[in-house]
Amino acid sequence: MKNNIKKLAELVNGTIVGDQTIIIFGVASIEKAQTGDIVFVENSKFLEKALLSQASAIVLPKKLVPKDFNQKVLILVDQAKLAFAQIINVIHPSIKVYSLIETTAIIANTAQLALDVSVGHHSIIGKKTKIGSCSVIGSHCVIGQEVEIGQECVIHSNVTIYDKVKILDRVVIHSGSVIGSDGFGYVFYDGQYHKFPQIGDVIIESDVEIGSNVSIDRGALDSTVIGQGTKIDNLVQIAHNVKIGKTCVLAAQVGVSGSSIIEDNVIVGGQVGIADHVRIESGAIIGAQAGIPTGKIIRRGLTVWGTPARPIDDFKRIYGQTQQLPMLKEKLLKLEKEIAELKKIKN
Amino acid sequence: MKNNIKKLAELVNGTIVGDQTIIIFGVASIEKAQTGDIVFVENSKFLEKALLSQASAIVLPKKLVPKDFNQKVLILVDQAKLAFAQIINVIHPSIKVYSLIETTAIIANTAQLALDVSVGHHSIIGKKTKIGSCSVIGSHCVIGQEVEIGQECVIHSNVTIYDKVKILDRVVIHSGSVIGSDGFGYVFYDGQYHKFPQIGDVIIESDVEIGSNVSIDRGALDSTVIGQGTKIDNLVQIAHNVKIGKTCVLAAQVGVSGSSIIEDNVIVGGQVGIADHVRIESGAIIGAQAGIPTGKIIRRGLTVWGTPARPIDDFKRIYGQTQQLPMLKEKLLKLEKEIAELKKIKN
Amino acid sequence: MKNNIKKLAELVNGTIVGDQTIIIFGVASIEKAQTGDIVFVENSKFLEKALLSQASAIVLPKKLVPKDFNQKVLILVDQAKLAFAQIINVIHPSIKVYSLIETTAIIANTAQLALDVSVGHHSIIGKKTKIGSCSVIGSHCVIGQEVEIGQECVIHSNVTIYDKVKILDRVVIHSGSVIGSDGFGYVFYDGQYHKFPQIGDVIIESDVEIGSNVSIDRGALDSTVIGQGTKIDNLVQIAHNVKIGKTCVLAAQVGVSGSSIIEDNVIVGGQVGIADHVRIESGAIIGAQAGIPTGKIIRRGLTVWGTPARPIDDFKRIYGQTQQLPMLKEKLLKLEKEIAELKKIKN
Repeated sequence: MKNNIKKLAELVNGTIVGDQTIIIFGVASIEKAQTGDIVFVENSKFLEKALLSQASAIVLPKKLVPKDFNQKVLILVDQAKLAFAQIINVIHPSIKVYSLIETTAIIANTAQLALDVSVGHHSIIGKKTKIGSCSVIGSHCVIGQEVEIGQECVIHSNVTIYDKVKILDRVVIHSGSVIGSDGFGYVFYDGQYHKFPQIGDVIIESDVEIGSNVSIDRGALDSTVIGQGTKIDNLVQIAHNVKIGKTCVLAAQVGVSGSSIIEDNVIVGGQVGIADHVRIESGAIIGAQAGIPTGKIIRRGLTVWGTPARPIDDFKRIYGQTQQLPMLKEKLLKLEKEIAELKKIKN
Repeated sequence: MKNNIKKLAELVNGTIVGDQTIIIFGVASIEKAQTGDIVFVENSKFLEKALLSQASAIVLPKKLVPKDFNQKVLILVDQAKLAFAQIINVIHPSIKVYSLIETTAIIANTAQLALDVSVGHHSIIGKKTKIGSCSVIGSHCVIGQEVEIGQECVIHSNVTIYDKVKILDRVVIHSGSVIGSDGFGYVFYDGQYHKFPQIGDVIIESDVEIGSNVSIDRGALDSTVIGQGTKIDNLVQIAHNVKIGKTCVLAAQVGVSGSSIIEDNVIVGGQVGIADHVRIESGAIIGAQAGIPTGKIIRRGLTVWGTPARPIDDFKRIYGQTQQLPMLKEKLLKLEKEIAELKKIKN
Repeated sequence: MKNNIKKLAELVNGTIVGDQTIIIFGVASIEKAQTGDIVFVENSKFLEKALLSQASAIVLPKKLVPKDFNQKVLILVDQAKLAFAQIINVIHPSIKVYSLIETTAIIANTAQLALDVSVGHHSIIGKKTKIGSCSVIGSHCVIGQEVEIGQECVIHSNVTIYDKVKILDRVVIHSGSVIGSDGFGYVFYDGQYHKFPQIGDVIIESDVEIGSNVSIDRGALDSTVIGQGTKIDNLVQIAHNVKIGKTCVLAAQVGVSGSSIIEDNVIVGGQVGIADHVRIESGAIIGAQAGIPTGKIIRRGLTVWGTPARPIDDFKRIYGQTQQLPMLKEKLLKLEKEIAELKKIKN
């Protein structure tokens, strides 16, 4: 969708430097930009590349204004990447179909769909399930009974939501994800694992985004909770009774075991494993592939790495010293000889 | 479903201490329990909390009987958690629909469904596939040709089962799981990977439970086997020709590579990686995130951790000593100086 | 499908030793082979076992010809496993249904399906999507708008392909995989993560095979690319903007973070984690569970292991020395005592 540069600048509360009348036809990366495209630059590292690119306009922070614009039109803003995200939303509006429920969808009589809900082909909505206004359900979703989905949610195709899951507003769930499956709970007795029934539920608060092929289990007796604004990448495992706070980030393939608590604003790197009954306090950062043992508490604001995880400076120091081991060993053998020599002289 | 406490005590072969006439309305965790709820306690650690909770009754081991009951009714049993699981099943019976095959399901003429089989909306059952009595197939499942599913199985929605997979009785498979996809087998020749056709099958024995988004590949020429009573958590990968024994537990995100053997009663922690042609003998325990290299044998009953995995005591001892490396280095440098000093005096 | 041994030998350009008239009824592993089966042997290790098996014929390398054939018929070839793969394809031809589009499939009016395309039950093909000749789409697939799928592709059941994904020829995608979901991109501002719209696409080149439950995200602005002939195992995560070259192998549960580049002929072991903006040069091998930190370059042909990954010889040497730490510490303490002793004498 083509747009006047002035309209875009107003949208992001930016200041134009250069020709205020040009038309922008697309957004692009610096590498692929063509005439008519707008690009963005966040730091000086890529500024020159942007100026040499084919792009017609650049969104950039005020402090980065270059001396020579190379005939580019600039939009100066406080937050370049955020502004660019807003511009993308205008130039490439995400297509949303409202108020269309495909005739192939199977919706229980007792389900309550608000106005302007969309449901794709073959999706199934169970008994007493409620879906809030303007929410979009893709094709081939299976949504169980007594599920609650808030307003303006996007449930992509091929998502499975078990009974009694509660999803608040503006939640996005990508394809292949399964929400509310049974937690992994058994009682070992008489040589066999006996299932401990999983009758809790899952609560996903507002503004959460969940990637593709994610598994989130229901609580055993209580709830599994994903806090407001938290973002979960693909192939993540969230076990029963886990409580995740607000505004956390869990990168791909993270696993969180039963009853662990992640407080607010925590960042969890890819492939991290968090054992059961762990507590990660607010603002902590867990480096990729780290492992947090059962019952461990990671203190507020700490950055940790390794398995078992320890403060990242300790990890790096110890890691550095293991690299010196061959040298240490050599030194030690040398001293051993010298002492033997001294003792010989002594006697 | 409300129940007389006496009936519940009889169910679990327990002894009531206190008012034998109360009615139980629900099960709950200690934290969330309300009047009318029953809770359970396994060890003394949570006993006081349970006594102070709002619960009306507590299931607990005989040996834990408290002095002051705080007006709770107690059910004394041998196995508190197991008894509680049985009580949940009575108070929250899992809803099972028998004998209902949705008209939107597509079932091949040559498929053989026993009496009392349920099939959900839009599920597809292939040619010559057999399903045993009282098994429940969810919605949107794709079950291939010549598949065999035993009695009382529960295949949740959105499960894919390829051709010729054999599933015995009382198996549960959660949503998003894929059983019988091609193993990862290629012949590298002339600069390209050529597919080695995967014509084996998968055998899942009785009482196995498989979590959500699990991948189990078919054998190349033979079978991939999951043994009786084994429990597999979410997002686990089982490669071609793997043989898993009876009563094993595989936590979430474990990966088992081609042709590896896991014997009986093995416990595999989360995110463990088992390379190809490994043998894990009976009763071994593999700590979370451990890595077992190609061809390795883990001996009967051993507990291992780390990558490459070694006995857990060795792991911990070496790990502890790496933490002392800065101190060792310091000591070494000090000795170096002292020896230099001694040598100087000497001369 | 039964076959004359002579026909099979001709197929693989092999030389028969023994009875040229026997009929082969099946292929098998050495362990399970019965009379009438053909097996293969790649190296001397399994030759005796094959000769003692029930098999009627053996495919084996010319150089392995045994002295005593034990009445087996031999087919001597250059590449035994490759030849055997070709023989499997003849004896067990993979069933492909051509030109059948199930009436339950929902295909947009503006979609263009070439001749001989198959589409399974309930699959959905979006607007302006093109599918090349002889491609097979399974059941319950959701294929978005403006998708391009080449010739002779096999998209198994329950695959989800988002809008605008491009798939070239002879690509195989297994069930549960999701191609083209949004990359994990946010701008943190004012205490919240704001979505950075993901408007790029995914390009999957010819002869790629993708396992089950794989997640491949679309690029943010550009393309995520999987190169020609690359094979990806189950449960792998490919983030936005990743570029993977030709003829790579990614084992199960690998994760590749945003904007990383994997060049040609790279082998990535199971559960490896590759952080963002990494470059793995051609021919490198990454050992299982290794972790490659952000921005790291792994040089051409190098084999690395560990987290953070280093050359495998370094890893093994350092690892070996950590195992000697208790001994080193003991030696050190002994020297300490000896020096104290020497100093005492001195004074």
